Amino acid sequence: MRILVCNDDGIESNGIYALVQSLKEIGDVTVVAPLKEQSAVGHAITMHIPLRVTEFYKDGEFFGHAVTGTPADCVKIGIRNIMKETPDLVVSGINHGSNTAINIIYSGTVSAAREAAIMDVPSMAVSVTSHTAKDFRFAGKISKMLSQKIADHGLPVGTLLNVNVPDVPEEKISGIIITKQGKSKWDDIYEERKDPHGKNYYWLTGNLMEVDNEIEIDQFAVKNNYVSVSPIHFDLTDYETLNKMKSWKVEELLNGKSH
Amino acid sequence: MRILVCNDDGIESNGIYALVQSLKEIGDVTVVAPLKEQSAVGHAITMHIPLRVTEFYKDGEFFGHAVTGTPADCVKIGIRNIMKETPDLVVSGINHGSNTAINIIYSGTVSAAREAAIMDVPSMAVSVTSHTAKDFRFAGKISKMLSQKIADHGLPVGTLLNVNVPDVPEEKISGIIITKQGKSKWDDIYEERKDPHGKNYYWLTGNLMEVDNEIEIDQFAVKNNYVSVSPIHFDLTDYETLNKMKSWKVEELLNGKSH
Repeated sequence: MRILVCNDDGIESNGIYALVQSLKEIGDVTVVAPLKEQSAVGHAITMHIPLRVTEFYKDGEFFGHAVTGTPADCVKIGIRNIMKETPDLVVSGINHGSNTAINIIYSGTVSAAREAAIMDVPSMAVSVTSHTAKDFRFAGKISKMLSQKIADHGLPVGTLLNVNVPDVPEEKISGIIITKQGKSKWDDIYEERKDPHGKNYYWLTGNLMEVDNEIEIDQFAVKNNYVSVSPIHFDLTDYETLNKMKSWKVEELLNGKSH
Repeated sequence: MRILVCNDDGIESNGIYALVQSLKEIGDVTVVAPLKEQSAVGHAITMHIPLRVTEFYKDGEFFGHAVTGTPADCVKIGIRNIMKETPDLVVSGINHGSNTAINIIYSGTVSAAREAAIMDVPSMAVSVTSHTAKDFRFAGKISKMLSQKIADHGLPVGTLLNVNVPDVPEEKISGIIITKQGKSKWDDIYEERKDPHGKNYYWLTGNLMEVDNEIEIDQFAVKNNYVSVSPIHFDLTDYETLNKMKSWKVEELLNGKSH
């Protein structure tokens, strides 16, 4: 199995290192990851400036290709230019921090996996629920097991898995469960401060307002120490509203011009 | 009607100016937009550096608030800090270039409107199909008419409209139609070049591979000179795959630990 590994915390992070160590046991791993941290970049891509690619060594050994771009850039250039053959699987992570509920929208980790799905390559994003996580070995093991599941069952074109692993000792893990995206979101607060020159600046902070309370929802599952596995896609169409909008009669807006 | 206007091309662009001129006829408009162009930033948010907000004047008159951040940042800080009351509507645009099919994923314009939907504020993204568009008055008129439609009918919580207007003279417009997101996507090519110092760099280019061929699909609708109106949302769960994944028996991965 040819596996492309990417992340958003940067090629030097502990999470990607643990992921690579684990996936090496089941496949031929190529790392293409951002040179610098790219958290909360969403699905940004770089078009207006060029990208640089350099070789990154860890403990004197070649580890992977570092890209001066976003997670989605890494997957694009990894598949198009760096790998000689299209990978069988793309795994993004292991992210330092949850990607559940609304965080999926902002996540660079998820966007890398989504970019692979756009390119018709099966993919998975893996996150550990704490920003201060130190031990990624259990999440690495989960990544390996789920990679094997993807190889066995396949994924529909355009679908990827979003996996979140609670940052607790393995013996405290309740189990593993298929979930949907939660509705918890942030109560953003911009702290207004003054710089040393007396000018205002604003710094984003806030708390996740937890509204999810079913075990089959990603945010509640990880809170209850379950490994959460959500199938997600990138067809954003709201089909229910699409049907209801027939009553809007938008075709009448342009004096009867209509399909 | 209190309307917050944002975009991704930056506060100085022609598209946002035309939008404001048109929406002023039906409401009280507040502009909060990026100081600099932010195309293809996706749903990035700024957490690790502070934001600055400055007043932007056009022809000697106050036009709006310029933010040193992304489109989603502008909507967040606009609603949380700049506007005294939550707006009734957020309109993002008018973007210079299509946001149809896969482009919705990469779009800063759409992400601004989506951020509003996340904050439970009805919203709409508006784009004109050409990067070289000069006349945004018709798209401004469409924005005004659809804003009125949203005021009349409401939108479900979490749903926004993605509107694309063909860049053709108004008399060539075929009509206006409710659509779904297309499947057309890019055949990314990274051109490999050498800089003056002999080092390689890569520049993203490519063509949109058009696979959509039904008039009820955004990309095909605009190609046939229809104004395209797509309801989209941010629940990324793939419910069909979720049901099918029961056969994966992931709960067996952790030695029988399960819900």
